[in-house]
Amino acid sequence: MTGKLNIVGVGPGHNDHMTFRAKEIIRESDIIIGYETYVNLVSDLIEGKTVYRYAMTQEVERAHQCIDLAKSGKIVSLVSSGDPGIYGMAGLIYETLAEGGWDPKDGLQVEVVPGVSALNSCASIVGSPLMSDFAVVSMSDLLVPWKVIENRVESAAKGDFVLVIYNPASKKRVHQLQDTRKILLKYRKPTTPVAIIVGAYRESESIVITDLENLPNHSDKLGMTSTVIVGNSSTYSYKDLMINPRGYKSKYNLEEQTNPDLKV
Amino acid sequence: MTGKLNIVGVGPGHNDHMTFRAKEIIRESDIIIGYETYVNLVSDLIEGKTVYRYAMTQEVERAHQCIDLAKSGKIVSLVSSGDPGIYGMAGLIYETLAEGGWDPKDGLQVEVVPGVSALNSCASIVGSPLMSDFAVVSMSDLLVPWKVIENRVESAAKGDFVLVIYNPASKKRVHQLQDTRKILLKYRKPTTPVAIIVGAYRESESIVITDLENLPNHSDKLGMTSTVIVGNSSTYSYKDLMINPRGYKSKYNLEEQTNPDLKV
Repeated sequence: MTGKLNIVGVGPGHNDHMTFRAKEIIRESDIIIGYETYVNLVSDLIEGKTVYRYAMTQEVERAHQCIDLAKSGKIVSLVSSGDPGIYGMAGLIYETLAEGGWDPKDGLQVEVVPGVSALNSCASIVGSPLMSDFAVVSMSDLLVPWKVIENRVESAAKGDFVLVIYNPASKKRVHQLQDTRKILLKYRKPTTPVAIIVGAYRESESIVITDLENLPNHSDKLGMTSTVIVGNSSTYSYKDLMINPRGYKSKYNLEEQTNPDLKV
Repeated sequence: MTGKLNIVGVGPGHNDHMTFRAKEIIRESDIIIGYETYVNLVSDLIEGKTVYRYAMTQEVERAHQCIDLAKSGKIVSLVSSGDPGIYGMAGLIYETLAEGGWDPKDGLQVEVVPGVSALNSCASIVGSPLMSDFAVVSMSDLLVPWKVIENRVESAAKGDFVLVIYNPASKKRVHQLQDTRKILLKYRKPTTPVAIIVGAYRESESIVITDLENLPNHSDKLGMTSTVIVGNSSTYSYKDLMINPRGYKSKYNLEEQTNPDLKV
């Protein structure tokens, strides 16, 4: 019996922005596993399948369960919103497999199906904030010490990176984004544009375009489904959009644009 | 007459990893514009449409052309590989519109369709390199001075970010990745895993998992369709995969995993 373990990103939470591969692989699966919210995002695809819905806990046990079910010969899809390769379950599955001496060549087959992650979906809604180099930081300090995260924020600020913030805050966790703002204000103007995107492409979608100075006025927008994007020194806001110029109209000579290795 | 301008990401270059929205919006369009390589990725969707195929040049003129065609009442899709919101055409279109005094509320309608970008697709193929905070840097110094890029690499290295490198090298442009490697080696071990991904999900796909020390041995893999991912201090390689532990199995107490604001 040959099973398979798929780790599937279903995108931001609207079927339109799911990939064909994600839909196909869910359809081909015997078993669907995931947090209830994520499983609900694909409820139209899972009729007749064995479905395990979970609350958000016991990730390590979950990884073992997925692997065991796949090893028993089933085709198992672990579904998650966004991209499971970005702060997702792909890491824990591979860690667990590696500890068990797994060999990808003759052991269990694993496929990670990439998806439109929060950074892609949120950026597409608020203009063009990710035209230049950017850093992605999760404010969740449950598994990473706050000192490490703080150092990353400081480094990203010094490097003039656009900053994409995952898990910006929760009811219990509020100082992290406040501290981040203070660090950023050492390097960036108070007028630096900031976007808060809640529930991108979901019915609950709401967008705020503000700036570093006024960010504290919008703390009611920060929660489980929020992403925050902070501009760099070049980003400007224009009629509820953030625009990050790519540089074509700056001092560099437009005549030189024939360089073929520029991704545009 | 009401036209519309769509800026559409078609993903890594294999139809399976395109989103439903990308396919739908291309089908609904009157006019398709893009670099020849990108237009060819969707050749099965564009029969009977007006198609403008371009070599890689004159981006500013192209932006004006797209806008003018859409303003004339056409539904225009500017297609690109990956996600047009990441180092893509979204920025230049918005910049050009803003300069012309565009008002999104009553002017031309614009939609950016996010896609599976190189960072998503490449990560999904080589294990789980993006489980913790990461920085994305383009080595192309045509529009950004090398000093700025170098400072970003140094900042990302200090912050222990996993580093995703777009446009790592071209025939003419080789010192940038060499310099980057030198900077990283000031902060990271020579055994730090590095993945070079060429043509993710295309027929030409090829993958090398190496390390910072041995990166120079694989310069033949660096080009237009290559992406490089460099691990941070926690990343390890396992049987041709890069694994970045999320922290569940580290010193943090697994019992505390009930925090609901952790994206997994």
